Amino acid sequence: MFPVVQLSYLSGKQMKTDNILRLAAQVIEKAKSHKKMITMAESCTGGLIAGFLTAIPGSSAVVDRGFVTYSNESKQELLNVSENNLIQYGAVSAAVAEEMASGALAASKAHISVSVTGIAGPGGGSPNKPVGLVFMGQAGQNMPTSHKKLLFKGDREAVRLQTVEEALKTMYSML
Amino acid sequence: MFPVVQLSYLSGKQMKTDNILRLAAQVIEKAKSHKKMITMAESCTGGLIAGFLTAIPGSSAVVDRGFVTYSNESKQELLNVSENNLIQYGAVSAAVAEEMASGALAASKAHISVSVTGIAGPGGGSPNKPVGLVFMGQAGQNMPTSHKKLLFKGDREAVRLQTVEEALKTMYSML
Repeated sequence: MFPVVQLSYLSGKQMKTDNILRLAAQVIEKAKSHKKMITMAESCTGGLIAGFLTAIPGSSAVVDRGFVTYSNESKQELLNVSENNLIQYGAVSAAVAEEMASGALAASKAHISVSVTGIAGPGGGSPNKPVGLVFMGQAGQNMPTSHKKLLFKGDREAVRLQTVEEALKTMYSML
Repeated sequence: MFPVVQLSYLSGKQMKTDNILRLAAQVIEKAKSHKKMITMAESCTGGLIAGFLTAIPGSSAVVDRGFVTYSNESKQELLNVSENNLIQYGAVSAAVAEEMASGALAASKAHISVSVTGIAGPGGGSPNKPVGLVFMGQAGQNMPTSHKKLLFKGDREAVRLQTVEEALKTMYSML
């Protein structure tokens, strides 16, 4: 019923993302049945979480908006992330991930919100914050705001797709 | 250098999106060399334009934010689309596409902006506004705001991917 997306790298490596589309369909279905709206604040995934969810017909019933916040400035302006946390901990941090999630919740009519901020690579890594490091924030009405610290292996596309998959699983569990 | 994405439908139909990633890389490259920032306001593509652009390493130099505005309310709140146009012409219209593009430009630091609003299907079509109809708005500093009316064939995923491709070509020509 849903398209199977395959990522074929020039190296010959293949990554099937049909699983991600199935997860997206499950999230949409569960949100519909619970009458919950979902939103997302995306840095390193750059719109892919929203892109996978809206691949599912009827997703407009539960996704009304999403935020692609790549720069620090956009995180502040669209999600009300504090300059203080950006300076003190950096954009890729637990504090900023949580602020992104709660900011997206506040800037939408959603019941639950998931955020991601990480280092997809190939550049931008450091000993303390290597490529593949992702902080995922979660916020919702009547639930405490929290985060997960994740470390994914692989190249830019692999890190991004694993992040999307984990975000969808997180949404599913929150619904 | 860039991943090749293949969309394999269960019917056996295949659609290569490596062309879209090449286009995305060309847009990023041209924007970098002209020192221009890009933004996008996405309804029917739901984040995929931003998702493809940010698949390219170094895209953060030219993409600082994007807007996924699926509902009418989100178009009003994030992009300042007028309720009047939404009521008079509907969300899938030239007037709303242009307002989305100029609204995204105003709500970012970008030099150019592209918007898309359309009917990806399978539902939501009508005789006047069939599945595959997409209005694409374009706005930029020192250029008139305008739109294109497009009609794509195929299923939901085909309509969305063709829309992404056209949006990237539009961005490239605007840079």
